[in-house]
Amino acid sequence: MESLKQRILKDGVIIDGNILKVDSFLNHQIDPRLAFDIGKEFYNRFKNARVDKILTVETSGIAFAVCTGYNFNVPVVFAKKYNGLNMSPEVYRSKIRSYTKQTDYIISVSKEYLSSNENILIIDDFLANGQAVLGLIDIANQAKCNITGVGIVIEKGFQQGGQILRNLGIRLESLAVIESFNNNKIIFRED
Amino acid sequence: MESLKQRILKDGVIIDGNILKVDSFLNHQIDPRLAFDIGKEFYNRFKNARVDKILTVETSGIAFAVCTGYNFNVPVVFAKKYNGLNMSPEVYRSKIRSYTKQTDYIISVSKEYLSSNENILIIDDFLANGQAVLGLIDIANQAKCNITGVGIVIEKGFQQGGQILRNLGIRLESLAVIESFNNNKIIFRED
Repeated sequence: MESLKQRILKDGVIIDGNILKVDSFLNHQIDPRLAFDIGKEFYNRFKNARVDKILTVETSGIAFAVCTGYNFNVPVVFAKKYNGLNMSPEVYRSKIRSYTKQTDYIISVSKEYLSSNENILIIDDFLANGQAVLGLIDIANQAKCNITGVGIVIEKGFQQGGQILRNLGIRLESLAVIESFNNNKIIFRED
Repeated sequence: MESLKQRILKDGVIIDGNILKVDSFLNHQIDPRLAFDIGKEFYNRFKNARVDKILTVETSGIAFAVCTGYNFNVPVVFAKKYNGLNMSPEVYRSKIRSYTKQTDYIISVSKEYLSSNENILIIDDFLANGQAVLGLIDIANQAKCNITGVGIVIEKGFQQGGQILRNLGIRLESLAVIESFNNNKIIFRED
């Protein structure tokens, strides 16, 4: 998505040579017109597939999931994160490893909001090692849903998440794939 | 907002006679078309005021803040919640009392994303005792912003938050105000 890549080049900040900060327009501060364009782009990429519901995880995936759901006119469900021990039988749960924080956390979705055979499009802002998306896939599988695909705003192509998902046979559409950081310059993977 | 009230009557669930659950269309699962209509309604109510930025707090305010920001074409900033002791000098912080959970938590906004004299419209999904909105006002005041007003999707009119804000002279627009629950029936305040 060319306009997204241009925005990343313009407003993204590289920290310590290998961390991309997009806080000024994607998370923490959000440009809502860009979020809407992102939703429309996911719609265009997946519109010929079956999409009954959008699934994301709080917090920073929500804006893009809602804008995507708006275009498909389907409900958006966001998994909740917590560290606690809520063992309610009413929810699907999955444990996720956070490599950046070196901790585990749990995500959960109420069983009411995922039904068997629903076609689920998973949306998230970032894909790095893929743990959050794998947790969402785990939950969708517990609910016996079909995974239509995964839409990611920014994929870190030098981490393993994208390869893991493709190896699982899952259709992955990433709007911008960062191949590497070269002398504080962002190199995108060619489409 | 008549369509919102009708949706609350149709899909809202009253628990224990005094808790309104709107998880199926406002939080956890979101109806994105309704979220956009809500954003448009906030725009219509505040369009003659000055709005440079939308401010909300994670998680369930984000969808409505983004839809409102889309209509105003201004950035959306969401405050982050945490329990920890991040004492970074780079953020504005405010402590919030959660009466439901009987704990305190901190919300923070990076100083980069609020500038003095910016006109801020605060958006949130629920207003009950007003603690979260007061925390956002506190942060906006620290940044020397002007508070244009507060837009709330559902106000619990029988709790004190609305009165506290009006007593502070703040313009409050609530799209649905619940006056009471009467024998498991929702009574809205007249507009």
